[in-house]
Amino acid sequence: MNRKQTFTWALAIVAAGFLTQENAFAQEVPKPPKMTPEMTEFWEPEPRVVTPGLNNAAPSDAIVLFNGKYLAEWKAKADGAEAKWAVKNGAFTVGKGDITTKKEFGDFQLHLEWSAPDEVKGSSQGRGNSGIFLQDRYEVQILDSYQNRTYSNGQAASIYKQHRPLVNAMSKPAEWNVYDIIYTAPRFKEDGSLFSPARVTVLHNGVVVQNNVGIKGTTEYIGLPQYNAHGKAPISLQDHGNPVAYRNIWIREL
Amino acid sequence: MNRKQTFTWALAIVAAGFLTQENAFAQEVPKPPKMTPEMTEFWEPEPRVVTPGLNNAAPSDAIVLFNGKYLAEWKAKADGAEAKWAVKNGAFTVGKGDITTKKEFGDFQLHLEWSAPDEVKGSSQGRGNSGIFLQDRYEVQILDSYQNRTYSNGQAASIYKQHRPLVNAMSKPAEWNVYDIIYTAPRFKEDGSLFSPARVTVLHNGVVVQNNVGIKGTTEYIGLPQYNAHGKAPISLQDHGNPVAYRNIWIREL
Amino acid sequence: MNRKQTFTWALAIVAAGFLTQENAFAQEVPKPPKMTPEMTEFWEPEPRVVTPGLNNAAPSDAIVLFNGKYLAEWKAKADGAEAKWAVKNGAFTVGKGDITTKKEFGDFQLHLEWSAPDEVKGSSQGRGNSGIFLQDRYEVQILDSYQNRTYSNGQAASIYKQHRPLVNAMSKPAEWNVYDIIYTAPRFKEDGSLFSPARVTVLHNGVVVQNNVGIKGTTEYIGLPQYNAHGKAPISLQDHGNPVAYRNIWIREL
Amino acid sequence: MNRKQTFTWALAIVAAGFLTQENAFAQEVPKPPKMTPEMTEFWEPEPRVVTPGLNNAAPSDAIVLFNGKYLAEWKAKADGAEAKWAVKNGAFTVGKGDITTKKEFGDFQLHLEWSAPDEVKGSSQGRGNSGIFLQDRYEVQILDSYQNRTYSNGQAASIYKQHRPLVNAMSKPAEWNVYDIIYTAPRFKEDGSLFSPARVTVLHNGVVVQNNVGIKGTTEYIGLPQYNAHGKAPISLQDHGNPVAYRNIWIREL
Repeated sequence: MNRKQTFTWALAIVAAGFLTQENAFAQEVPKPPKMTPEMTEFWEPEPRVVTPGLNNAAPSDAIVLFNGKYLAEWKAKADGAEAKWAVKNGAFTVGKGDITTKKEFGDFQLHLEWSAPDEVKGSSQGRGNSGIFLQDRYEVQILDSYQNRTYSNGQAASIYKQHRPLVNAMSKPAEWNVYDIIYTAPRFKEDGSLFSPARVTVLHNGVVVQNNVGIKGTTEYIGLPQYNAHGKAPISLQDHGNPVAYRNIWIREL
Repeated sequence: MNRKQTFTWALAIVAAGFLTQENAFAQEVPKPPKMTPEMTEFWEPEPRVVTPGLNNAAPSDAIVLFNGKYLAEWKAKADGAEAKWAVKNGAFTVGKGDITTKKEFGDFQLHLEWSAPDEVKGSSQGRGNSGIFLQDRYEVQILDSYQNRTYSNGQAASIYKQHRPLVNAMSKPAEWNVYDIIYTAPRFKEDGSLFSPARVTVLHNGVVVQNNVGIKGTTEYIGLPQYNAHGKAPISLQDHGNPVAYRNIWIREL
Repeated sequence: MNRKQTFTWALAIVAAGFLTQENAFAQEVPKPPKMTPEMTEFWEPEPRVVTPGLNNAAPSDAIVLFNGKYLAEWKAKADGAEAKWAVKNGAFTVGKGDITTKKEFGDFQLHLEWSAPDEVKGSSQGRGNSGIFLQDRYEVQILDSYQNRTYSNGQAASIYKQHRPLVNAMSKPAEWNVYDIIYTAPRFKEDGSLFSPARVTVLHNGVVVQNNVGIKGTTEYIGLPQYNAHGKAPISLQDHGNPVAYRNIWIREL
Repeated sequence: MNRKQTFTWALAIVAAGFLTQENAFAQEVPKPPKMTPEMTEFWEPEPRVVTPGLNNAAPSDAIVLFNGKYLAEWKAKADGAEAKWAVKNGAFTVGKGDITTKKEFGDFQLHLEWSAPDEVKGSSQGRGNSGIFLQDRYEVQILDSYQNRTYSNGQAASIYKQHRPLVNAMSKPAEWNVYDIIYTAPRFKEDGSLFSPARVTVLHNGVVVQNNVGIKGTTEYIGLPQYNAHGKAPISLQDHGNPVAYRNIWIREL
């Protein structure tokens, strides 16, 4: 590279040599010329405008997955039939069988609010248990973890059986919890092997509890996680037999 | 590794060979035995409990950098004297000279709210300009970017002159903006060279605008960013001559 | 998750409580049961066998890009015509115009040997200058850097104008140099933006000189590197007017 | 940032507007001014010179861990006594008890040659088994994997029980094997938790078999790997009861 500049630099070195009498034997090397401010100012592309939502409401470019009224964006996971979890007072409650979004997603930002059952009963994994499956495979745990000890990598906001949350930021009983999830999908090579793992950041009630952790593979109740190549996939919610409630769910593709 | 198991596996292979008459020549390989659920359940350490704050209030483990009343956590950057930016109505407004926190931080989650001046005047970089310097070096831009075109890598929520925001999620004039910043400090080797760059995620009004981007080095108005080894360092706020207001600032070390 | 185990664990906790009389109030938590060695032994898939080459010869699964005789794997970059650089004594010498491989590559391991001209003349960028363009875009510099000062990020084994080599491991004049390059291609998102940068490790004469560095974008003689989405692409060799010689080139897709 | 340039740019925008008659309504945005080549040429620091070794010999800046004659750089792991594995014909053979280097290392490049016993006996993990423990904790497997099936994540050049090699590049019986290992030590946070995992690239006989993989934690024969904070640590070689031979071992700190 750069065949013409040699002569110029050579001159610069010679000149510099004459000027620095106090250190005649040190090798003088060129310093890069000063740039102008405009050289690092890039106007294109211009970021598109998004109108933010106030108080956790959906931004203008979000896909609203639940607006308080209908489960139109969801279907039963088992058979693809209509999602029949009960909607009431702007929220819906876990019913029979997992549900899953009709749309599929890659990288995204997901906002979701949930509430453990008002009646506190059961313990450990038996209290207020449900779960969000990112791309239908990687579970962010939903559990009533307010004064309810269980295994750390199975409590609320854990990446189930992979990463415990940094802290326990659970709301008190009868209060809502907020999850803000920033998710980067795994990438695979042409031969199906893993190129880069899924990564996830989770804020639980505004507190960072997962900080860009690498997901180890599919969530497994028994055994070790592993990866199998896949593309875009839905968000699923788990029926674990407890009447966990959900509201205000929106997603933005990243 | 593992000198005793060879015999056991050899037996298993032989046994398996006898049992699969339909494919006598295929090499049979052992399958890992099934694990139990408890083998992937880790109870220790237990995540400590944090009481989350409602409506962007500080969680119980946060250091409150501004509570609406005093600038006690800040000092003038130039001479370390008392920070004298004016406090009024639960907020403070940019005054003469940058200010900086008395405490120093490494990795952290920072919550901060700011408002461009109510009187909209100036354009491009001249309208509502200030900035947050993470570890006193890496700037998240503050600018009134509501219908105010400037270079993309210099608008609100840009990593100044390095990364434009993914979208423009600016609030309307006279409304407050919220930044939630998740910051990982750079690491250096013993010889002072860079081991891993600083990384940052920014939510602007709840919208992801910087998604775990790598910071390229110190923020430079003129020239290229570069890294110089450093340890923990304060958060600084920039006086750019515009009366930008700040309120509700808290930080959690990660 | 896991609705049946609660009872079992509860019993275990009670039992443990009875047994630890010396610390009756401490909460006892379960410890994961011991696994067996076989649970972490995975036999499938079996890595395929590659016969290594002795003394830098090509392994059995490599594509030989130059075997000492013909430039059959190469073409002129300008017009796609036959590559006409002169082959002699098992090597070929830079001729008129860049050449490029007919095949295209993604991630790969590349072995390449080169020799600066036996007659040492010129200085800085004017001595023994050529270059290898990975995926036709990202240059690993070829330069006679034996006792020939130039800008550090432009000497042999630099990622040209991006990363200087960790050390200068240049062979003496008239001796051959060996590059072993491990390259991971950049990945892009559907919208053409960068997902992950190209990464490269370079061994120069067996010495690590680039250690999995992130490539900043296309090699630019003037201005800043940037990324534009692309897929598989060829390897190119640069005609910089100096009679640099090449031999023993092979590549393995990773 | 940048309060003075606004006026200049405003003029430029106006001027550009007059000049583009064919698209009078499109917003004109400034383009960054052209840089000069020298602006991206950095002369300092100058990479120090290393004289490479020919034919796998140690480069001039390497620490030679075995030069064919003495085990002066090693000690018994059990009690720190003199290393007593037998040296003969420029190589040494595994004796009683693991040995470990007297020096400790962080990030490094390690070159090591090994030979499975000339008499081929045993099978699976019972044939030619030894191992290199990077930082005394993370094992690169040594095993006679020539036509010797075992679990894939336990064959030669595996990261034992964590990552199988990409391919099996094992030499034939009675021939030497070469490992070139590029190792990045894990980093830990002040509280002892993991900041970044160890990473390793392995070339087996010149073939890339581990490509910058993340090490999952300490090598465990039984159970799951985990991390415990540590600093620099030695290289250890395992006595697994088989007379594996070693020669030509050198290391360069990175």
